[in-house]
Amino acid sequence: MLRTSLQDLPASRIRELANVGLGRDDVVKFWFGEGDLPTPDFIRAAAKDSLDAGETFYASNLGLPELRAAIAAYVSRLHGTRIGEERIVVTSSGVNALALTCQSLIDPGDRVVVVTPVWPNLTSIPRLMNAQVTRVPLSCTDGCFELDLDRLLEAAAGARMVIVNSPGNPTGWTMAQPQWDALLASCRRRGTWLLADDAYERLVYDGSMHAPSVIGQVGAEDRYVSANTFSKAWTMTGWRLGWVVAPSPLVGEFAKIVEFNTSCAPVFVQRAALAALAAGEAPIQATVARLRAARDRLVGNLQRIPGVEVASPPGAMYAFLRIRGRSEDSFACAKALVEEAGLGLAPGIAFGAEGEGWLRWCFAATTELLDEGVARLRGWLGSR
Amino acid sequence: MLRTSLQDLPASRIRELANVGLGRDDVVKFWFGEGDLPTPDFIRAAAKDSLDAGETFYASNLGLPELRAAIAAYVSRLHGTRIGEERIVVTSSGVNALALTCQSLIDPGDRVVVVTPVWPNLTSIPRLMNAQVTRVPLSCTDGCFELDLDRLLEAAAGARMVIVNSPGNPTGWTMAQPQWDALLASCRRRGTWLLADDAYERLVYDGSMHAPSVIGQVGAEDRYVSANTFSKAWTMTGWRLGWVVAPSPLVGEFAKIVEFNTSCAPVFVQRAALAALAAGEAPIQATVARLRAARDRLVGNLQRIPGVEVASPPGAMYAFLRIRGRSEDSFACAKALVEEAGLGLAPGIAFGAEGEGWLRWCFAATTELLDEGVARLRGWLGSR
Repeated sequence: MLRTSLQDLPASRIRELANVGLGRDDVVKFWFGEGDLPTPDFIRAAAKDSLDAGETFYASNLGLPELRAAIAAYVSRLHGTRIGEERIVVTSSGVNALALTCQSLIDPGDRVVVVTPVWPNLTSIPRLMNAQVTRVPLSCTDGCFELDLDRLLEAAAGARMVIVNSPGNPTGWTMAQPQWDALLASCRRRGTWLLADDAYERLVYDGSMHAPSVIGQVGAEDRYVSANTFSKAWTMTGWRLGWVVAPSPLVGEFAKIVEFNTSCAPVFVQRAALAALAAGEAPIQATVARLRAARDRLVGNLQRIPGVEVASPPGAMYAFLRIRGRSEDSFACAKALVEEAGLGLAPGIAFGAEGEGWLRWCFAATTELLDEGVARLRGWLGSR
Repeated sequence: MLRTSLQDLPASRIRELANVGLGRDDVVKFWFGEGDLPTPDFIRAAAKDSLDAGETFYASNLGLPELRAAIAAYVSRLHGTRIGEERIVVTSSGVNALALTCQSLIDPGDRVVVVTPVWPNLTSIPRLMNAQVTRVPLSCTDGCFELDLDRLLEAAAGARMVIVNSPGNPTGWTMAQPQWDALLASCRRRGTWLLADDAYERLVYDGSMHAPSVIGQVGAEDRYVSANTFSKAWTMTGWRLGWVVAPSPLVGEFAKIVEFNTSCAPVFVQRAALAALAAGEAPIQATVARLRAARDRLVGNLQRIPGVEVASPPGAMYAFLRIRGRSEDSFACAKALVEEAGLGLAPGIAFGAEGEGWLRWCFAATTELLDEGVARLRGWLGSR
């Protein structure tokens, strides 16, 4: 019944796999991109206070002025730049930030270039707007992913938009600063839009405050949009709150597009985000420290298993691994792991053909759970 | 900077007018479609309990199974039919329900027919999906609006979709059952999708439980979608929660489209909706009784003002009026009312050319505020 042009839009292979484990409470699950901790108390308290205050009315399309200002201050401080609140739009989740951007900018037939393997939403959202999508695969050496920049720039000739998710889901690949600089220069020259999915920008493990970015270099007139979310850095996945940094002339137009999608985010959710930002770096650094320890433990343990190829990802919250002679058909392998070992990993094919042969393991979990997962993998490999 | 095909997408004229009154606290405002009461305590309490329980994680794309079941039971009971939960999708607001439907069904160039004057989102959302929009205006006699069904059916020949908002915003026009029946029969014959924006279905004032509808007649395979919201009947505007009733084969596809828009609604917001539904008819009947009294008082008072033409609307929550010799340019009139009388009404032009000459007055307000508004209108007319 779906419209013609969407009839081959792929369903989520992660969801399909999760259905295999449905109703089984003996599966240890690392398949979704979500941590195991609820949102900190003080953030939830701010939402409850807002509800008590009766803030249950419509809000402005672009977000509460005080939240836009707080986001602008946060992004400016983080990136050592000056971004005014007139460049901020509050959105109903990070994915909504990406959807609104594509709805604003993509005409039918426009070409959109995406670095892959990647979270499937980044290729499907442009398709929803009737774009042609060109995929530019990362290359891989010993489990480490790298971008051939020349190949990306070549593919981007004549494109309407380039989408980069760095640190990337599922690989953890993080684009280096010189590549960002060159990409921005090329996009400026060609008038191509550059959309940065910065959901994981705070989840980097080399001691930096954020992943490399050109957000500090772009002006209010540049064809550059950063899409972001409160989900990962503040463990607020279920709140559905994000934002974009966009050129000022586009923000007024964004107000219309927001109006036609969700109209606004709930005020009490925005109050929670204000509390999150007001707490400064502490909650984020706590998240990063926990994830770094989890990454090091999981990857170290996996690397000790014969036949497993995995590198330590520089960012995001996933180990991306393959198992010689086992994971070539990633969906079949992930399915067998659920059914035979009670271990829930995401199949690489969920992230496109470039991900085939790989498995994604979200390490936003307790040490105990991660260790149990490794034990199950070892047991499963040994028993075959 | 917006894409080519959206460059003439109109901005909200209501928003533009509201900006005229920005920073003035002496304006009595009836321009937005929102009541003046916060959400009932027991609904807010359910959200707070959910937050306390740590329900801050992702939820399934289609909504909590228990909420889908509760909505299915509610709709079935209300309309004396049997709609299974497999036909329900929870959405991030009523407007989001409409957006998802259009994203699922409209290919570029498809023609969409809309009964007007109407809430501008209903014509802009299809345009966002690159549809051609055909407007079918209601006719008006002594302030009462009526649909020429033959004209609608003629316009709908070859169209992909017909959108009907009944009771309608801004007119309160409510489509009669025989017209619904004939429209459904025609859509079935032609394979045209019928999208009912049922946001106001509970706000009817003749003692009926709901406005006329064909939802009780359609099967799981019919090309019929009802979009609805918790906003109006349960005074939950700021929560951004809605739903659709869709054909079963479309619901699985909807899951994908939801994934690419907001992915899911917050669990704690869905818990609030569950509490709202569990309370049964009492909160809705309280809303309807309050609005009926407000309508009767406001319309009665307006009808006593010389030169004012207004009829008692059978549904929704707006008086739609015109003032001889004054409101022909509705935006200029609304602007003068704000600036000279501190009275905030929505200009009819905000709802399309067919609304020009009219003003929309939301009567979801206290008696005192409505009376003050009428006094200001009288004073303004007398002083000119």
